[in-house]
Amino acid sequence: MSEQNLAVLLRRRPVGAPVEEDFEIVEQPIPRPGEGQVLVRARYLSLDPYMRGRMSDAKSYAKPVEIGAVMEGQTVGEVVESRHPDFAPGEWVLGGYGWQRYSVVGPERLFKVSPEDAPLSWNLGVLGMPGLTAWVGLQDIGCPKPGEVLVVSAASGAVGQVVGQLGRIAGCRVVGIAGGQEKCRFVREELGFDACLDHRGDLPTQLDAACPEGIDIYWENVGGAVQAAVFPRLRDFGRMVMCGMIAQYNIAPGADAAGAPPGPNLGPVVRKRLRIQGFIVSDTGWQRYPAFRAEMLGHLRAGRMKVREDIVVGLRAAPRAFIGLLEGRNFGKLVVQIDA
Amino acid sequence: MSEQNLAVLLRRRPVGAPVEEDFEIVEQPIPRPGEGQVLVRARYLSLDPYMRGRMSDAKSYAKPVEIGAVMEGQTVGEVVESRHPDFAPGEWVLGGYGWQRYSVVGPERLFKVSPEDAPLSWNLGVLGMPGLTAWVGLQDIGCPKPGEVLVVSAASGAVGQVVGQLGRIAGCRVVGIAGGQEKCRFVREELGFDACLDHRGDLPTQLDAACPEGIDIYWENVGGAVQAAVFPRLRDFGRMVMCGMIAQYNIAPGADAAGAPPGPNLGPVVRKRLRIQGFIVSDTGWQRYPAFRAEMLGHLRAGRMKVREDIVVGLRAAPRAFIGLLEGRNFGKLVVQIDA
Repeated sequence: MSEQNLAVLLRRRPVGAPVEEDFEIVEQPIPRPGEGQVLVRARYLSLDPYMRGRMSDAKSYAKPVEIGAVMEGQTVGEVVESRHPDFAPGEWVLGGYGWQRYSVVGPERLFKVSPEDAPLSWNLGVLGMPGLTAWVGLQDIGCPKPGEVLVVSAASGAVGQVVGQLGRIAGCRVVGIAGGQEKCRFVREELGFDACLDHRGDLPTQLDAACPEGIDIYWENVGGAVQAAVFPRLRDFGRMVMCGMIAQYNIAPGADAAGAPPGPNLGPVVRKRLRIQGFIVSDTGWQRYPAFRAEMLGHLRAGRMKVREDIVVGLRAAPRAFIGLLEGRNFGKLVVQIDA
Repeated sequence: MSEQNLAVLLRRRPVGAPVEEDFEIVEQPIPRPGEGQVLVRARYLSLDPYMRGRMSDAKSYAKPVEIGAVMEGQTVGEVVESRHPDFAPGEWVLGGYGWQRYSVVGPERLFKVSPEDAPLSWNLGVLGMPGLTAWVGLQDIGCPKPGEVLVVSAASGAVGQVVGQLGRIAGCRVVGIAGGQEKCRFVREELGFDACLDHRGDLPTQLDAACPEGIDIYWENVGGAVQAAVFPRLRDFGRMVMCGMIAQYNIAPGADAAGAPPGPNLGPVVRKRLRIQGFIVSDTGWQRYPAFRAEMLGHLRAGRMKVREDIVVGLRAAPRAFIGLLEGRNFGKLVVQIDA
């Protein structure tokens, strides 16, 4: 093969918001699979907020990407060479590695997918890590019951759109929070949320109007002013599913750091018997992937679950798209189509 | 009967720390039991921090005590008159009501106790609401596992002393936090905690020395500076059992109020998969009282569980003793012996 591998490397650790100069785009030789491994040619790359944490060397639940190494990420692609008996060239798989066209991976966390089930890119969103995140967090921590009020921040995003729709299917009254009227309209009209509030407006007042009896479940994707507005409105036995706090990823990825803003006084946690719990989907989520996938395919086929993707074309556009993701400029699940 | 009922009423709602003038001590006619009720003559009254909340009319999980009404509290005493078939005069019961000598109560939450099982006053501590609180919170939220590090604030208090000893029995390494060297020595030497730290000293440094690998479970009784020192030292999958935050009861009982100090930034909740959960023992605790009591009696008889009480004599001394409780001046479970 004379073709080269195109890859995006971490050139240096960002200070604050990443800039394009923090990345380096290179051509490298295509890696060769060892015994038991497969070579995947990526069709789509997922871009997700957690990657900001990997660019930092602050202590976290996963190791940082080394300087000069390929940026971490998950791809869906085609097996082009296999040295593992379970995978054959031409098969489509979820689980290629990194911001690059070609990757060599082992069979762990490699799932076969079919373009007949759903568009391939959906395996990075509603049928992939973000969808699994929504499903695991709701199941383990949110525990939605019919008639409860579920508030979802970043409601049009990759995780939020699935959380809200699963909440609707569970019989909750679902209120989204998103940035701007266009996203809010989409969340209400296309995704079927009962309401969607624009956090650029007066959020406390909007929350009082949309949730006059308070909030049972808050899905936390953002932190900051949105969290401050929602927290005092939680009802007795309320659950706060701590999925992420993107508002502070650029200032304090781990948030032990000096400079992290304070949070809410925890007195109401006692009085209201609140549960505030964090989770990381990779802890136990992938063991449950087959059950998740079966359920989600059912929702999708029945038309109960809608999908919105924001597809950027060309791997070279990934750094800029990722920077925009941290600023909320994407609209729907952000995916990079590797080649035009 | 020419004897009168002695009772402590709420005279007015305190602003900040309660003072003796917020209470009124009166003699009243002894109440008469209605059909299905019993008249209890209290031997001991329990004084507990939650009562500060009942003196305020801020919204909470229980109704406030009305101005002019008897202060809420639980007593252990003797049935002197019964109009319920399950209770007979001369029997000892846990579950008399209020800061008063005589009370009329129904059969709900009235438990027969025997002076042969344990000293009667223990039914208000290790065998009563505080002990049940410790047992329920550890079981439902703390989930202690052998080898884990459990940190208990207000470690010599009514709840803390039971939490730590149950943690020790469960195989945890138990570190108490208390105010002053005398309490710390008692917690280590008598209660058998592995360590006890004086929060009047440099708590972060002491915590680093006592828990070099971090904290798995934090039992929160106090809030404030102690919480601020413990929170960043929680390990992955740590649990914070939110039992109370006595440090702020006089400034912001419900802590939605303006003036409540901020809490910790919640970023680490995601990254470390922390669980911060509050509970109120009265929600489900009393249904589990028989199982709790049987287990605790076993620990007491085997000498695995030690008890320290701070007994104040005379109901008229209750207001001053309660004010001291909020200042940490008690040493052990605070109980009022009604009569000398």
